[in-house]
Amino acid sequence: MTQSYNSTLLDNAVAQLAKLPGIGHKTALRLALHLLRQEPEVASALGEAIIAMRRDIKYCRVCHNISEDDVCGICSNPRRDPSQVCVVESVKDVLTIESTHEFHGLYHVLGGVISPLDGISPSDLEIESLVARVSEGHIREVILALNPTIEGDTTNFYIFRKLSDTGVTLSILARGISIGNELEYTDELTLGRSILNRVPFSNTISAQ
Amino acid sequence: MTQSYNSTLLDNAVAQLAKLPGIGHKTALRLALHLLRQEPEVASALGEAIIAMRRDIKYCRVCHNISEDDVCGICSNPRRDPSQVCVVESVKDVLTIESTHEFHGLYHVLGGVISPLDGISPSDLEIESLVARVSEGHIREVILALNPTIEGDTTNFYIFRKLSDTGVTLSILARGISIGNELEYTDELTLGRSILNRVPFSNTISAQ
Repeated sequence: MTQSYNSTLLDNAVAQLAKLPGIGHKTALRLALHLLRQEPEVASALGEAIIAMRRDIKYCRVCHNISEDDVCGICSNPRRDPSQVCVVESVKDVLTIESTHEFHGLYHVLGGVISPLDGISPSDLEIESLVARVSEGHIREVILALNPTIEGDTTNFYIFRKLSDTGVTLSILARGISIGNELEYTDELTLGRSILNRVPFSNTISAQ
Repeated sequence: MTQSYNSTLLDNAVAQLAKLPGIGHKTALRLALHLLRQEPEVASALGEAIIAMRRDIKYCRVCHNISEDDVCGICSNPRRDPSQVCVVESVKDVLTIESTHEFHGLYHVLGGVISPLDGISPSDLEIESLVARVSEGHIREVILALNPTIEGDTTNFYIFRKLSDTGVTLSILARGISIGNELEYTDELTLGRSILNRVPFSNTISAQ
């Protein structure tokens, strides 16, 4: 339902804000009325930041993460290990993995996962450029860190086949019980996987 | 905490989005990354709608509601009763009261309430223009519909004093128990007021 508020300018701003994920019509109206109460500079700063971001943002030539320059800050950091590359679906996943402070290698952002239902085929993703990076010979390990979904697994398998004769080590994020969760509330698939992939107890001690 | 995402353009958009009420840093990042995945036209439509709304929106010369023209659609509607004026704090309250479909008069938007703590005095509000409207002599009843807060009550009393010798009828929204609520969960002040201001049962029947 589109409601009219005596002003096409307000109607339009509310309609555009309501297109954002998780923002319904009521929230969009609240945000628009908030902006109306601010100085004009507040609204123009927000509007221009959104336009400039989408128009001018750059992507790293090497790993396809967002970047200030031609090559991003992670790829150009000499303290990162260039022999390890973590393959992720999106820019957001780079931020998520960086927040763990557990990975010190480089990334490769695919820009999605193979999903025939959504019309996303391997050629729509940055898979060829991953194969090219690996064929340069400096990468020893490729860590697959896609989401544990059917599409993620399909993409994992496609990359595995593409890289299987390059001699690179292929690994995948461990699947198992969440730290702090109770066994009772862990789903059977994950719990089963955590039994199959159990690790020596001494590993746990050394990891702490 | 401001986090950096390898791009000042993204950082800036996230910072601007996070200034909106109810939008924290994580949500702002989610919205920005969503916009990055859309066509550039989507981001520019949103940004330009926000800028244009704040820059070009007009306010009704009579009631100070937002408007397409010099005089708003409610004030210029010949089917509305110009002898009743409902005084509200903000544009949002006009929309809220309109959604009840119970009021067929005109509005007067004060643009706030008297609040010495926030530095808002009567001269910052559209009170003089309300007195001027009433002194034209066409208005028979002024309905005070400010929020039931201390500031709202202070403003109500100020308006009451300003209009007390004009002969206009001053009324105020009924305060009492909410329809559908249980007595047990109604606060004592409201419940006490609903006993003092009880109405003949026959009124309730005719209102349905």
